[in-house]
Parts: sequence; C-alpha cells; structure tokens
Amino acid sequence: MKHFDIRRPDNAIRKALTDKIDNLTKPKGSLGRLEELALQIGLVQQSLSPQLKNPCNILFAADHGIEREGVTVSPREVTWQQLGHFSRGGAGINFLCDQHGFRLVLVDAGVDYDIPEGHGIIDMKMGRGTGDFLYEPAMTVDEWDECISRGAQVVDMVYADGCNVVSFGEMGSGNTSPSSMWMHLLTGIDLPDCVGAGAGLDNPGIKHKLDILSRSLAGYSGSEDIEEKLAWFGGYELAMAVGGMLRAAELGMIVIVDGFIMTACMAAAARFYPEVLEYAVFGHQGDESGHKLMLESIGARPLLHLGLRLGEGSGAVCAYPILLSAVNMINDMDSFAKVSVTKYF
Amino acid sequence: MKHFDIRRPDNAIRKALTDKIDNLTKPKGSLGRLEELALQIGLVQQSLSPQLKNPCNILFAADHGIEREGVTVSPREVTWQQLGHFSRGGAGINFLCDQHGFRLVLVDAGVDYDIPEGHGIIDMKMGRGTGDFLYEPAMTVDEWDECISRGAQVVDMVYADGCNVVSFGEMGSGNTSPSSMWMHLLTGIDLPDCVGAGAGLDNPGIKHKLDILSRSLAGYSGSEDIEEKLAWFGGYELAMAVGGMLRAAELGMIVIVDGFIMTACMAAAARFYPEVLEYAVFGHQGDESGHKLMLESIGARPLLHLGLRLGEGSGAVCAYPILLSAVNMINDMDSFAKVSVTKYF
Repeated sequence: MKHFDIRRPDNAIRKALTDKIDNLTKPKGSLGRLEELALQIGLVQQSLSPQLKNPCNILFAADHGIEREGVTVSPREVTWQQLGHFSRGGAGINFLCDQHGFRLVLVDAGVDYDIPEGHGIIDMKMGRGTGDFLYEPAMTVDEWDECISRGAQVVDMVYADGCNVVSFGEMGSGNTSPSSMWMHLLTGIDLPDCVGAGAGLDNPGIKHKLDILSRSLAGYSGSEDIEEKLAWFGGYELAMAVGGMLRAAELGMIVIVDGFIMTACMAAAARFYPEVLEYAVFGHQGDESGHKLMLESIGARPLLHLGLRLGEGSGAVCAYPILLSAVNMINDMDSFAKVSVTKYF
Repeated sequence: MKHFDIRRPDNAIRKALTDKIDNLTKPKGSLGRLEELALQIGLVQQSLSPQLKNPCNILFAADHGIEREGVTVSPREVTWQQLGHFSRGGAGINFLCDQHGFRLVLVDAGVDYDIPEGHGIIDMKMGRGTGDFLYEPAMTVDEWDECISRGAQVVDMVYADGCNVVSFGEMGSGNTSPSSMWMHLLTGIDLPDCVGAGAGLDNPGIKHKLDILSRSLAGYSGSEDIEEKLAWFGGYELAMAVGGMLRAAELGMIVIVDGFIMTACMAAAARFYPEVLEYAVFGHQGDESGHKLMLESIGARPLLHLGLRLGEGSGAVCAYPILLSAVNMINDMDSFAKVSVTKYF
C-alpha cells in the first residue's frame, strides 16, 4: 500500500488560536462546537484566519459480489442508474451540493455497467463489481493497493483545482455489507452489532444479511494481515475512499466524513495512519445500527443527527454550513479589544 | 391579551405531500428529518412546492430587574453595548445572519439605556428594564398585553416585506432567570431542574440564582391567572417574542425557535394557542440545564445539538440550511416517475 506522509498539525499555533477564539465578543465557550471546529481547522491550516475553499464531494460508485446473496433491498442496476442520475442532476446529492456550493465529482470505481463517456464521470473502474466474499475475496491485495492509489489520484485532481475541504460519498447496492465487515474487523465489535437495515431491510432481511456475513467471516481463509482482510471483505469504492481520505490529510485538507459507510472507511484509514483523524470532521450520525458504536470506538462526535441514510455524501455536505460558520466566526466576529463591550465570561 | 386566529393547517394536502416525498429518487424515509420538515412546511404553506422567502431574525433586547440580584455573570450594560454592536455588525448573530441570508431586525424592547436614533433599531421600549421580581412584578398585565401587541407589530413589518420564515432571538443580561421561572410555571417541572448556568455561572453562582428564584416564587402575591404569573416573572423581550410567535403563526409563517429562552417563549405561546406548535421548528438544543426537559414537555425535537449558549437567535439561524434543504429536496429532486431508476424501498 502506497505510503502517506500524514503529520499531526503543529501545536505551536494552538494557544494563539485559543486566545483569538476566547476574545471574540461572546461568553467564552458559548459558540460550542463552532469554537472547537475553528480550532481544529485553524490547526490543520496553521492559520489564525483559516479559509474553506472550493468544497468538493467525491462520490465513488461500485458494485459488490455480495449483493448476489440478497443482502439488500436495492437491486444491482440501481448503482449505475443512480450514477447516471447524479451526472444529470436531480438526485439527493445534487440539490445538497448545489445548496452548499459543492462541486460533485463522480467516479466509476467499479460499476457493473459500461458507463458511456461524455458524462463527466471519472473512469477509475477496477472491474464490474467485486467478487462475492461469501465464496472468494472481494478483491486481491494488489487491487486494494490500486484502489488506494486511484482514490488518492482523484483527490490530487480536486486539490489542483484549489479545493481544501473534501467530503466523500458512495453509491453501491449492497455496500453496507462490506462496511459492516470492516467495522467488525477494525473495532472488534461483535458482528451482530455491526449489521443494520442498510437501504431499508426489514427484520427478517437483517437476519438473513447477518447470516450471510457470519458465514462469510467463517469462510475467510486469508492471513491475519489487516490489509488482506479489508481487501477480502471490501469494496472498490470503499478502498478508494480510504486512499482519498489519506491523501487529503497528507495535503492538509479538511475531510468531512459522511455516515456509516464512510465512517468505516475513516476507521480503516485511521488504522494505518491515526493522524488522519486530526483532519476529519464527522458530519452525521445516522440510525444505521452500529454507527454510534463505531463512532465511539474512534472517538468521533458527529455534528448532525438527522436520521439520514441516503449515503452519496449527503450527511457530510449537510454539515458543511457548520464548518463554514466556524470559519466565519473566527474571521468575522469582533474581539472585545476592538469594540466597546464589557468582557464577561 | 390580543386574540390570534391560529388555525391548524388543513390536512387535506397531507397525502399528496407524502406521496410526492415518497416518490423522490431515494429509499423511502432515507432523508430523515428533511422529509419531516418538507411535510411540515408544505402543510403550513398548503403547497406541494413550498418556498422559504426573505428569512428574518428578530432580536428583542431588554433589561431585567432581577439582574440586580447577582443572578448572572453578564453585567447590565452588556445589553445595550451588544445591541449597539449588533447594529454595527461584528457580533455572533451578524456573521450567522450574513452566512444564511437573514435580515437581522433589532428591537429595543426595554433596554436600560437611551438608544440613539439612526442605528436602525426599532423603538418598542417599554421602560428601562423590568421590575425586580424578587420584590415586585417584573411588569403589569397591561404591560404584558402591550408587549404581545408590539411583538406582533414587528412581525407585521417583516411579513409586509415578503418574509415567510422568521426566527426570534434575544439579548438581555439576566434573562435566563425569567425563562427558568416561565419554564417552571408552564411545565410544572421543579424549579431546580429549570435553573442553569446562563451565560456562564459556576456552581455557587447557580446555587445563588436558584435561591433568588425560589424566594421570588415564594414571594408571589398575584392571582392564579397564568398571564399574571408570566407578566410577574417575565421580561419585555420574552413577552414580545411570544406576541411575535403568535402573530407569525397567524400569518402562516414558519417560526424557527432558538435555545432555552426562546423555547420558554414558545411554551408560553403554546399555552394560549397549542396550534402555534404546528408552525414551529426547533433549531437547537443547548446544554442549559432544563432545556431538554422543557423541549420534551412540549414534544419538540430540535434539529441541532452544537453546544451553543449565545442566544441572539444563533441556534435558530444555524438550523436554517436544514429547512432550506428540506424545501430544495421537495422542489428539486426528481421522482422515480421522471427518471429511469428502479424504485426500491
């Protein structure tokens, strides 16, 4: 796997940032999470006047062999249909990107369809869906490595265009199954606590999904190496998101993490480079069973709880105005020194 | 007290709204609170294509006799200083209003200072602060009635300018004390559970505040009439906010409710007209002790939990992009009927 040079932000600027935030015209701490975010973004950017520029939502789409086992209500063809839909506008992620000024970057990571050219969808196709991990590895370790590199390449493209804040989204029928497997592998939480309804399974459906995933886990015949395990039970779009997150942190970008699936990717990224969490803002905690547990396991406190379970990056993009408020606060609010207001705490 | 003709929105349109939302290209229910908000706003506006227009944050400022009893860390002069600061820009509420396209409407409801003209601050002054309710009524019932009318008048002004979504904010040193009293009177929750840190009291400070409020309650010598009680322990800015909320609902506007203080005002408004809650969206749940209890007592589920305790309307304005997302969703997302995506649930 490609090496990433991810540093913990230099803490030398922390005191100046804290002083600046504490001297804004408000009771100390009264802007809560906005103050924490302003500190984090200031640290990442090593600036007392941080800026968020050209936000992008990179959406990786791919299909999954495990989808053949009836683990999802969402048919396989929905992956390519929705990817096309995103490219034409009119889907969930489109109105959110439009509202919040995000560029939507669409990537074919491995969709089971020949995506025609001319729709602005970046071709990073690894194949027409992964292998069915009930019987075989979803992908090889070489493919995993290649996904990491390709995800990083997409981030290089948006960075070159001046983007310094990026969210990741996904589209892939059945992709809460690999995410649940990753969560189990990365956190050690019992598999039943890692499995939920996905796009809308009923209780018998969840039971079947858990049965399939349990049998898949029992059938694993690879090594103890975590990369091999993540590859075996992974997804092309998930692995590319991991590469993208790591490259974004290496470049000093803020990474907004979406829901359950992207949290699994961030947990994977942090397994290799714990410092990546310094660059991460968790946008949304969904109702997917296990998301709360996984967030807790990596010490993450998401900004929103809106019951979203759409994926596509929707929860991350919805959280963006809160990041922007944090930056506006530190840049646009007056200090007590500047205006004639009695300082109180 | 002025009469308001507040109707429960006609439910005839509910099925058409639900059908429209359910047929957007997403798993049913997967946009969570956005779907609920779209339904609520559609019902209020009686429209399948609701619109949010010219949002305003009306900020009522006033002083409080009870502030003389050392119930707050925020000195009395901060009220007028901050009101002036809001009018010049550079305060917390300013950057939030700028970010979210809100007009900030400033109202002198009863500040202990002669606000000079020419700063765009609307003069609704009832006096230079209320009476100290440890010893006397904060205001008379006649003054309460006048506040209700004046708050309604300010809403009439913004409505005339095309506003159909309004939040209310406040500035007033010591005004969590009347809010705690109102919460106790309106919900019956024990006074200690209604009292918190306000702008930043330490534990001995909170104990003193509770002692003052307990003695104030014991000293009440008025009737059992709820209006008289709310007037006795009220604040000019709180009472005007109640009038504003009721008038906004009467006019069919969406009311975004800010934190602890504005929740107390909405609870008061709902005591007289329970239908007002159909028009209310609760923006933010703060850490102020009792806020959660009060929200539960009126069945409210706020959108954000960001640890804000600034007041000024900040928590309501921060929540606005979520309302806007709900409206964008119902207006801009494609239906399954329009695009070639397999419908799944």
